[in-house]
Amino acid sequence: MNKKIIAPSMLAADFANLQRDTELVNASDADWFHIDIMDGVFVPNISYGMPVLKAIQKHATKPLDVHLMIVDPDRYIKNFADLGAEILTVHYEACTHLHRTLQAIKDHGMKAGVALNPHTPVSVLEDLIHDIDLVLIMSVNPGFGGQKFIKNTYKKVEQLKAMILEHGTNTLIEVDGGVNADNAGALTKAGADALVAGSFVFSSEDPKATISNLKAVIS
Amino acid sequence: MNKKIIAPSMLAADFANLQRDTELVNASDADWFHIDIMDGVFVPNISYGMPVLKAIQKHATKPLDVHLMIVDPDRYIKNFADLGAEILTVHYEACTHLHRTLQAIKDHGMKAGVALNPHTPVSVLEDLIHDIDLVLIMSVNPGFGGQKFIKNTYKKVEQLKAMILEHGTNTLIEVDGGVNADNAGALTKAGADALVAGSFVFSSEDPKATISNLKAVIS
Amino acid sequence: MNKKIIAPSMLAADFANLQRDTELVNASDADWFHIDIMDGVFVPNISYGMPVLKAIQKHATKPLDVHLMIVDPDRYIKNFADLGAEILTVHYEACTHLHRTLQAIKDHGMKAGVALNPHTPVSVLEDLIHDIDLVLIMSVNPGFGGQKFIKNTYKKVEQLKAMILEHGTNTLIEVDGGVNADNAGALTKAGADALVAGSFVFSSEDPKATISNLKAVIS
Amino acid sequence: MNKKIIAPSMLAADFANLQRDTELVNASDADWFHIDIMDGVFVPNISYGMPVLKAIQKHATKPLDVHLMIVDPDRYIKNFADLGAEILTVHYEACTHLHRTLQAIKDHGMKAGVALNPHTPVSVLEDLIHDIDLVLIMSVNPGFGGQKFIKNTYKKVEQLKAMILEHGTNTLIEVDGGVNADNAGALTKAGADALVAGSFVFSSEDPKATISNLKAVIS
Amino acid sequence: MNKKIIAPSMLAADFANLQRDTELVNASDADWFHIDIMDGVFVPNISYGMPVLKAIQKHATKPLDVHLMIVDPDRYIKNFADLGAEILTVHYEACTHLHRTLQAIKDHGMKAGVALNPHTPVSVLEDLIHDIDLVLIMSVNPGFGGQKFIKNTYKKVEQLKAMILEHGTNTLIEVDGGVNADNAGALTKAGADALVAGSFVFSSEDPKATISNLKAVIS
Amino acid sequence: MNKKIIAPSMLAADFANLQRDTELVNASDADWFHIDIMDGVFVPNISYGMPVLKAIQKHATKPLDVHLMIVDPDRYIKNFADLGAEILTVHYEACTHLHRTLQAIKDHGMKAGVALNPHTPVSVLEDLIHDIDLVLIMSVNPGFGGQKFIKNTYKKVEQLKAMILEHGTNTLIEVDGGVNADNAGALTKAGADALVAGSFVFSSEDPKATISNLKAVIS
Repeated sequence: MNKKIIAPSMLAADFANLQRDTELVNASDADWFHIDIMDGVFVPNISYGMPVLKAIQKHATKPLDVHLMIVDPDRYIKNFADLGAEILTVHYEACTHLHRTLQAIKDHGMKAGVALNPHTPVSVLEDLIHDIDLVLIMSVNPGFGGQKFIKNTYKKVEQLKAMILEHGTNTLIEVDGGVNADNAGALTKAGADALVAGSFVFSSEDPKATISNLKAVIS
Repeated sequence: MNKKIIAPSMLAADFANLQRDTELVNASDADWFHIDIMDGVFVPNISYGMPVLKAIQKHATKPLDVHLMIVDPDRYIKNFADLGAEILTVHYEACTHLHRTLQAIKDHGMKAGVALNPHTPVSVLEDLIHDIDLVLIMSVNPGFGGQKFIKNTYKKVEQLKAMILEHGTNTLIEVDGGVNADNAGALTKAGADALVAGSFVFSSEDPKATISNLKAVIS
Repeated sequence: MNKKIIAPSMLAADFANLQRDTELVNASDADWFHIDIMDGVFVPNISYGMPVLKAIQKHATKPLDVHLMIVDPDRYIKNFADLGAEILTVHYEACTHLHRTLQAIKDHGMKAGVALNPHTPVSVLEDLIHDIDLVLIMSVNPGFGGQKFIKNTYKKVEQLKAMILEHGTNTLIEVDGGVNADNAGALTKAGADALVAGSFVFSSEDPKATISNLKAVIS
Repeated sequence: MNKKIIAPSMLAADFANLQRDTELVNASDADWFHIDIMDGVFVPNISYGMPVLKAIQKHATKPLDVHLMIVDPDRYIKNFADLGAEILTVHYEACTHLHRTLQAIKDHGMKAGVALNPHTPVSVLEDLIHDIDLVLIMSVNPGFGGQKFIKNTYKKVEQLKAMILEHGTNTLIEVDGGVNADNAGALTKAGADALVAGSFVFSSEDPKATISNLKAVIS
Repeated sequence: MNKKIIAPSMLAADFANLQRDTELVNASDADWFHIDIMDGVFVPNISYGMPVLKAIQKHATKPLDVHLMIVDPDRYIKNFADLGAEILTVHYEACTHLHRTLQAIKDHGMKAGVALNPHTPVSVLEDLIHDIDLVLIMSVNPGFGGQKFIKNTYKKVEQLKAMILEHGTNTLIEVDGGVNADNAGALTKAGADALVAGSFVFSSEDPKATISNLKAVIS
Repeated sequence: MNKKIIAPSMLAADFANLQRDTELVNASDADWFHIDIMDGVFVPNISYGMPVLKAIQKHATKPLDVHLMIVDPDRYIKNFADLGAEILTVHYEACTHLHRTLQAIKDHGMKAGVALNPHTPVSVLEDLIHDIDLVLIMSVNPGFGGQKFIKNTYKKVEQLKAMILEHGTNTLIEVDGGVNADNAGALTKAGADALVAGSFVFSSEDPKATISNLKAVIS
């Protein structure tokens, strides 16, 4: 997989006008919609859930990359498949039976992702890397947008890239949190395939141009 | 309190166009915005949380009536006060220290409500009725819109009205779930002060007219 | 409903020879099989679950009356329907959304029961009695067989019978725990429709005769 | 320890006739009884617990190898000691204070085992290997019989064997899940000391012969 | 039981000098030591536990009246018996199997108490009153000393007294929270047998005199 | 950091006379007060909490080194800052979002520590070592004083020291559990900077002399 991906996080969009912002992403150079589902229990914030995703999905013309920051995600795998998720990512820290969870995601026709909190080393995935379509490395603590990028992320991306090459899998590396034009190039060079950008995109004067610039930086 | 209240549930609005639907409610005969916050743990659905409420609040010109269907609501009382909630309602079934929770809500400048699941009798509130500004009687099981009204609700409203009169408090009675033009009048007659209406309003051809009709029925 | 019911609890059967003991019940005057599912979390004992029930079901020719002493029973309603349960009883103390749980049981084609721990008053069911097919009054604390009957049970049965008559429902009253020939008659007189008997039956010299005697006492 | 062990899982036996199947194992070349205790909370299935184990124990003439797939296993260590368990295995993923749990198992006169879910790397045991009598590597996700063997298991067995040799401990390696005549030899070669076989044994035409064949393959 | 009881709460004592304050209570007209154990999970504060109680017990010459504000109190019943508790009180809101918990307390040789949070009506105890030695009515929300007395307490004491007289039990009524010389007399008149006083005693200039005054007020 | 530190654990002090024992530590060669907060949920013991710490803090003239053996420590970070903690240490096993927790501790002006249970390898800290001021290696299982030192601790201290040197951080290594004059020297040699000593100090005939001796051993 050589194509680099930009996934704007809808958490930073204007929730009063999601059709407009969804269409903005449709019309942009972005590749995916990044969807941050937070339950207020796994993380200290409740963002949005099924009915809001349904509203986005109705207007979206690009893949939905859904990141579950929720406890016990197995309960809702079918719901997110029904809502059109193409990638469903669960947190390593939220799953007692992670191998089973990934199989269940795939059995529902989605790509299976695993997200790692900033303190969780990539080495915990060694016995599972063959079963993972995407690893989401959190470069901020999950729960809120607009946080500062954690620099240790570069090292984690490199370590993960080495693990993927060693095992010969097609696993994608995605980075989420504080991504902007200053670190996007370095992240891609370290091995990242997909970058999530939230407030950097939607707080900019011209979100479409910002997305294009990010794409240019990483391509 | 003689004025009867209609509170359209934004759960049934179009999440792709919340500014439009918020302004629709602003311009209607509705009295409050009903806000259904679900965490996927207390109820089997995740609806929406703080960032979506913030977007509604930005455009709303009427009071925000926030119904928390979440576990351990004490964690988020300050957040909802900061977001402009005028009434904050917690579930009886979610609170171990309900008296403390209500005090905390009031200490943050909001009116304090208690919601009762369909199986919970109103008698559980006997020692607390002096401390409650609003009781929300669920006439469907919380978690989803569009469910069928449970008929036992009439009896609960009557029992609660009797309790309120006996104690001489100003507690409001609100009913939520399956409310429509067929049952609104009887609910009001039984003692309800405020009615939440979701899909009945937003799935109708003319939501503003539907709200006006509901208002007419209950006034 | 005039016919009185005896439901031998398989918890007291010989788990090394369940086919034999199941066939013994088949050939007896007993009416139902009482199945005690314990998870070690809701109650401090793990009894048996799905695979053991499946083995009983294969040989049983009488209705399976399944009593779930487990947390969050909604997770397993479908499983017990698939295993052939005719009645599925959940604990009041284990259900946050009891009305929804009962509907789900009925939607899966089973009769819906609610069990009450010894300390839980029957008045908690006032808003729900129309929706309940069976109330199981625990006359010992759930978790173990062979315990001593709690005498307050008579009063609870009478109170519940009065509630049922007042509401005009067909709800059955079942009593479970320490039932024997000494109290069976008085329980029936108080209003019980079904009696669970475990060690009194299976620890007797002639279980079939013991069942017949119990039936005679209560008819 | 050079002797290789076959431990038939009683989860695949006929629960209607456990005395017969227990005696079958007694009379076979099998070495241990493997006992799968599931609580429906740690894993999504309730198998069987204390009273069923008691019935097996009454007839068994070989060691009971008990695998707890339950949350907070410390609560029941004494119970399983009283029921005659020779080995008591807890899940790494279920224990916050694993070192204490292992000590408690030994203090009750049993051998102490640790089970690893498919996604959990063996490296998590590095600081504990001196305290472990047996490591149970799950080669399927715990919760059900009859699942397909996960191939990554070979690597885990080899890594664990290397760790054991490096530390010079007597820890046994047991493998559980999808074991059959096709993989038993390779597992033994990789370093496994004990193999659990469930449906492969009890669904075969001649379970005793199947056990003998498995023994032959691994010896 | 006619003798009225004062139980100073050691939560308000000087934890730097517990021997001194324990001996002060010994030498006073107080009847019991009230011990507030808080775990930070059932209530939002951690007070003190076993080792501190042990230090008090070593010097105390009057009964220890231990109030557990902790989740799942069954785990620690034996510990508090070993530490010399004479009365052990658990919270209604913390016990799923309250009848069993009370039996376990008595089986360990202690008197069994049940505490009710401010919002919990006394009617929940109707089926249990014969099994309760003491009911502790919280007149503030548990978790902290120095809070303001809730006036609804008088009504609860009267209702509970009526229930006790109706059932002819010897259950004691204890009140805890904001008790002082202004309300002590009215509480006793309403039916209270024992009053807990914390900061009112230990923040006074002469705690022994304050205790004597309280005793005089209620006798 | 070359100065070696002795931190007497107040868990072993006389809770009936904490002012006296606090002043003893003040007057000794000890460097810190070690404060063991246990909630009875994370560990099977409730030690003491905020009010007892407040009493110690009032008399202490040396830094308070607070070790939280509690679930979900984020809830109480502000409280311990307000109580004067200089170092606040949380358990790796208790934190889902460890990076966030450490930031919150620092944001409240304290040094941030991470404690590791005996079975947890130091390698789990690789991505976090730059953010940690102190690592507390448990050399017994947390929950009780007076336990036997686990010898594997030496290896963990060495591994951690190597990690710290490799990353060039100023992280301190503290060891807690069964520390005495026999192992203190070897622990220091292995890399430990700070040693917690409880019953070895307070059960000795002359605690001040014992502290001085320990200091001499490690300096």
